[in-house]
This record gives sequence, structure tokens and C-alpha cells, in this order.
Amino acid sequence: MDWRTGVAREVQAFLDKHGIDGVDPFDFADAWRARYQPAMQAIRDGRRDFVPLDVLHLENLRAVLTESHLPTPFPPEELWQLTTAWHRLDPWPDSIAALAAIRRHYVIGPLSNGNLALLVNMAKRAGLPWDAVIGADVTRVYKPQPAAYTAAADLLGLRPSAVMLVAAHNSDLVAARASGLATAFVLRATEHGPHQRTDLAAAADWDVTGATLSDVAEQLTTDRS
Amino acid sequence: MDWRTGVAREVQAFLDKHGIDGVDPFDFADAWRARYQPAMQAIRDGRRDFVPLDVLHLENLRAVLTESHLPTPFPPEELWQLTTAWHRLDPWPDSIAALAAIRRHYVIGPLSNGNLALLVNMAKRAGLPWDAVIGADVTRVYKPQPAAYTAAADLLGLRPSAVMLVAAHNSDLVAARASGLATAFVLRATEHGPHQRTDLAAAADWDVTGATLSDVAEQLTTDRS
Repeated sequence: MDWRTGVAREVQAFLDKHGIDGVDPFDFADAWRARYQPAMQAIRDGRRDFVPLDVLHLENLRAVLTESHLPTPFPPEELWQLTTAWHRLDPWPDSIAALAAIRRHYVIGPLSNGNLALLVNMAKRAGLPWDAVIGADVTRVYKPQPAAYTAAADLLGLRPSAVMLVAAHNSDLVAARASGLATAFVLRATEHGPHQRTDLAAAADWDVTGATLSDVAEQLTTDRS
Repeated sequence: MDWRTGVAREVQAFLDKHGIDGVDPFDFADAWRARYQPAMQAIRDGRRDFVPLDVLHLENLRAVLTESHLPTPFPPEELWQLTTAWHRLDPWPDSIAALAAIRRHYVIGPLSNGNLALLVNMAKRAGLPWDAVIGADVTRVYKPQPAAYTAAADLLGLRPSAVMLVAAHNSDLVAARASGLATAFVLRATEHGPHQRTDLAAAADWDVTGATLSDVAEQLTTDRS
């Protein structure tokens, strides 16, 4: 999913509604996303009990609004509405057809740090054809902790080696491989915008590497048809 | 899903493979099912830690084989194969069309005592169009314990009153209502075979009552279209 474009779209609507000028919605989305890993890290480190990603997104939104020096006190229901922008992301252009192709041969689903409601709402709106939805509030562990990967395989009744993580982040694949999963890298060169500098290539000999999800789908299904 | 027919079909195949005569596969399925509630009760009562339903099904299968005085020692992999008969149930004739109709207006999914793998494999084989799959190994609580219902609503990000349980068992609906969920009864008059004596009618004023799932779907979607 193209989180940056989707979040920026909803941020712009929020700014318009409140008559706020001079804030770039993409910068705002990037600042919001920059707080994602540190917020989860407190939970990974045991400094904080598990809370779902929606809770972290809301806290992080408040922090970004504060650091943006926006004067208005916003009603809680409007902050929640904007928080659920993360439930309303659009897929990359190739996502749905590629998922459908893979799904003809495999059980598919997200293994996401998003919570189940976020993922289910996103899939419902976008038409993502998943067989199962495993959110972080199902396993109550945030990736890249090993238990996130092994618990997912366990819930599916599969050995880790019978499960493949397809991801656009090399660090996610490093952790998946360490837990025994198969790995596929898919390039998402503009996830972080036009000047992205991370994850522009496979950083290891992943089992599959694709320039698009369609490319990954073709490699996964050619031997099976 | 018509568990009795599906399980009996796989039991018959197992008996045929081992050249066993004189065992009625429907009686066998009934005996296997009779151990379902007592097995979960040990966990509900705290006499046993949570284990997924596949584990209970395997234990119960061994018990039924023993009480059936079948002499053969069966290989573990064949017992596991038969245990997963519960992953390969066929839907009632109206199930898929009715689910698809409801799904056009609502997020749908099972709230089952089955484990996630059982449910996902069943849906994959039968083409059940679920948005989310909440197995008992996700909440780690067996219905009708209240937490099974409230945890499901929580995972969906919904107040209990925004969630409806559609069930063929009045006892399930009693517990769902006690936890604040909306309720719909659907008649499945031959779930336990041609001589069924339980759950032949709604036992309370459930929010919706239907003679079929299609009937329930029509009532749920008429006001919304």
C-alpha cells in the first residue's frame, strides 16, 4: 500500500477543513511516519506494554501537531478520524492483480505491524483479496521481533519454511529469514517519496527478488501452474 | 458448514483405506463431535491451558478409535490427516451466496472455536468470502466464555453492539447477547442429522431470525441497499 500518498491526502483534507495553510501534507506524513519505529521500540524493549498501532498512530499524530505549532485544539473525534487515515490507504497499481494471481496458488495475507481492524478496514475499502489477516494485535508482538514471524506461521499451522514473507524492507526480510521463513523482496522505490534512499535494492540473496509485485507473482506461480 | 456430512465422508475414506467394515461413519462423526464440548470445558474451567481445537480433535479422535475397538495401530500422519477432516467441510447450499450478499454491506468473518488454520483452510477450499478470520487461538478463549465475544469486537475496532453474531446455536447467542453483541439465529435443522432435537427454533427474541442464511442475509441487507 502507498501509505505516504494516502496519509498526505487525508492530512490535506484535515488542514483544509481547519483553514490551515503553509503545512506540506507530505512532510507531515513523513514526520508522522518517522515516529512509527521509535513508538514500537518502547514496546519491543519491554519499556511499555503492548498497545495496538492505532493507539501509537494517535499519540504520534498529537506529537506531530504539537511540533508543527498548530494552534487549534482539535476535537478528539477529528483526531481519531485522521488517525484512521492509515485504514484508508490505496494499493500500488500492481498490488491487487498480483495478490489475486498469487492467491490462486497459495494462502495469502498480511503480516503487518498494523492492528487487525486497520488491516481489515483497509482490505475492505481497497478490495485486497486476503485469505487471512494477521495483525500485530493478534500476536501482540511488533516485527522484527522473531516471535512475530514464528507466531504467524504457527497460527497458519505451517512450519516457518513453508511460509514466505514478501516485503519491501530488507530489515523485515533479515528477521523473517532468521526465523526460518522464505523471503521475497519487492521494490517499492517511491514508498518514501521521490527522493527515497533506502531499500532500493535487495540487500541479500532473498529467495525471490522482484521489481514489482507482479514480477514476484510471476516467479512464485510459474513453477506451480 | 455441514460438519457431520464432511467428517463422515472422510471417516468413510479412512475406514475403506484400512479395510474396516461395520462402523457407521455418521455414528463415528457424532461420537467424535460429542467429545468437543467436554474437551473445551477443561480449558474454560482452567483445568488445562489453552490448546487449539486441532489438538483437541486429534485427542478426541484417538479416544473414539479406542472406544470403537478398532484393533489397528494407525500411523500418526494418518490420524492427523483424518483430524484435518474438520478443515475440509462443505458449506450448506445457501452459505456462499448469502455470505457474499451480507459482505456487500458489512465486514464478515467467523467467530469460531476452530483455530485459525482450520478456518483459513476451510475457507480456501470452499471459497468462503470472509473479510477477517478470528479463530479461538487468536483470542485464546473458547466460546461461550464472554471474552471470546468481546475480544473479537475489540480486534475489529468495534463496540460489541456494532457486531452481530449469526449462529445456529441458541446457547451461543445467549452468550453473545450477554456480552452486548447483536444476535441472529439461523436454522440448521439437520446439523446433527435427520433426527436433530436441539436448536430447531429461536429460543429468544433474537434481533434477526431466519429459516436459512439467505433469509438472514435478506433481512440484514434490505434496509441498507
